[in-house]
Amino acid sequence: MLMEQDSRAPRPTIRDVAAAAGVSRGTVSRVINGGHWVSPGARGLVEAAIERTGYTANHHARSLATGRANSLAFLVTEPQHLLFDDPTYALLLRGAAEALAERNMTLVLLMAGTDREKETTLEYLRAGHVDGVLLISSRASDVYIGELSAAGIPAACSGLPAAPAAGVPSVSIDEDASTRRMIRHLRARGRHRIAHLSGPEDTPGGRLRLAAYRDEMGAEFDGRLVESGDFGRASGAAAMERLLAGGVRFDAVFAASDAMAAGAIATLRRAGLGVPDDVAVAGFDDSGLAESLDPPLTTIRQPWEAISRAMVGLLLEAVDGAEGRSVTLPTTLVQRSST
Amino acid sequence: MLMEQDSRAPRPTIRDVAAAAGVSRGTVSRVINGGHWVSPGARGLVEAAIERTGYTANHHARSLATGRANSLAFLVTEPQHLLFDDPTYALLLRGAAEALAERNMTLVLLMAGTDREKETTLEYLRAGHVDGVLLISSRASDVYIGELSAAGIPAACSGLPAAPAAGVPSVSIDEDASTRRMIRHLRARGRHRIAHLSGPEDTPGGRLRLAAYRDEMGAEFDGRLVESGDFGRASGAAAMERLLAGGVRFDAVFAASDAMAAGAIATLRRAGLGVPDDVAVAGFDDSGLAESLDPPLTTIRQPWEAISRAMVGLLLEAVDGAEGRSVTLPTTLVQRSST
Repeated sequence: MLMEQDSRAPRPTIRDVAAAAGVSRGTVSRVINGGHWVSPGARGLVEAAIERTGYTANHHARSLATGRANSLAFLVTEPQHLLFDDPTYALLLRGAAEALAERNMTLVLLMAGTDREKETTLEYLRAGHVDGVLLISSRASDVYIGELSAAGIPAACSGLPAAPAAGVPSVSIDEDASTRRMIRHLRARGRHRIAHLSGPEDTPGGRLRLAAYRDEMGAEFDGRLVESGDFGRASGAAAMERLLAGGVRFDAVFAASDAMAAGAIATLRRAGLGVPDDVAVAGFDDSGLAESLDPPLTTIRQPWEAISRAMVGLLLEAVDGAEGRSVTLPTTLVQRSST
Repeated sequence: MLMEQDSRAPRPTIRDVAAAAGVSRGTVSRVINGGHWVSPGARGLVEAAIERTGYTANHHARSLATGRANSLAFLVTEPQHLLFDDPTYALLLRGAAEALAERNMTLVLLMAGTDREKETTLEYLRAGHVDGVLLISSRASDVYIGELSAAGIPAACSGLPAAPAAGVPSVSIDEDASTRRMIRHLRARGRHRIAHLSGPEDTPGGRLRLAAYRDEMGAEFDGRLVESGDFGRASGAAAMERLLAGGVRFDAVFAASDAMAAGAIATLRRAGLGVPDDVAVAGFDDSGLAESLDPPLTTIRQPWEAISRAMVGLLLEAVDGAEGRSVTLPTTLVQRSST
């Protein structure tokens, strides 16, 4: 089981109150949630038990006092199949779920992959069914940020939003340092003709990794060695085909995602080139794919669970009225046999 | 993109009302959601636009009139990693998401894999943030059914709940006919020593497929040819090892899940036995794994998207106060080269 209970002493639960009052949990719940369908006698028992168990100190009382839903949304604005195909969602979701479980809050996963779903999801959010929104996927998020901001709903973003909204908390990784570290690693392996397969310009991972690559390459930079894709495997395979067709010599490739690196390796193999003997290949992400590749891929490990945990923390600060903060997390270079 | 827009003429949206009123969508939303922070002038414009566009006929007005949340929960009571590892969740989710999108309703995915999450999730549901619950995973659902029923929250189940709760709508497949069809298929391929790898006794797929297998085998039934597992691949491999160690001859295996069949094929291969030449292997599910196996697996295809679409339909009937109905859907035998 991936999700662990945290180790702190548990707060009193509805179960404890029910046991103390000698009534069912359903009765306790109905008292807490407004008191409908509860006899005055049962209500008195429950209220006494709430006081005795210390249950008033917990989120229910807070929720009643503040009118909060005691929940955050994990909002995925990509098509549904990506939620399952891209392992980063599972990792981000795990971190967020654990962070909320520790606070006895509920994580609500909402998918808004189509225009219609975007509309209904926004209406759900506007109706106050969650206290804030974890915006997963930085690409389309700026549109959403505007809508949420207009509706007064706190949000936190992963990655730097393409057009940073003032005051919206966000969690990013150090794109610049991560990229430079990988280029230096490739150089240390004796490679100097380093190509780059970049991601989309409208994502931080596309834009910032390309900029850092260009800068770190310095005098060695050669624009003919840059091809772009959409972070997906097929786009990496196609970008590598264009690189090979271009006929410009290279001895290493730094891809902006592990999936693109996987596609690049497949193309190199079909062209009869060995990895890493002829071409060293490095990726970015380390969300499960990299270690399963042949050869296992050298890559930059993003701290996925820490990212969503940090988003939860910043979002709850914003829900409490704090100024939106941005946090940058460090990454790790994981060396495997592809470089 | 997996999710398609439906082809009916779209209902007027907030966007249409905003355009007609000459105000922002945020303003329209605030009028609809109770009128806070809206000037009387803007409110008048929005109300006139709502009337002009026919927006009153849609779910917002209904939601306001009935106090409904206009959303259903897709509740997964298994550990989070199963949501991503087991492809049936993605298929069920797609059907439910499409069915709700057509109704301009929101699908809320809730995970309750740990006791703590079960507690917070129940509290979220009791607070009225959804109108009903699609209970995914029949195994643990009976506990949950009781809690939801006590709280007066409509629910619909997939599979027959282990202990059917009176009046709870459920959608199942025809386990009996599906199993018999597979046994007859194996016989038609000349196999008569047919073993069964069964699923857990506390699931309909475990219990009912075993019962139908036993009955259909009739005089050919041999209790030594039944081994059980947990629907997972490793349990199928282990069950096949026990079968082989038992030394009782068999020429076919019907597994209660494709994953168990995959494990069985791996064990057979290690034992030097050919599929289908020495042993024909058949599974149950067809959620993606079966066609990717070597050899591709003959199996029973469950109508995954139809199952969750039917659950949505039955649940909405229950939300509207109808008596809970149960529906049984037919399956298809998909023949591939493993039999």
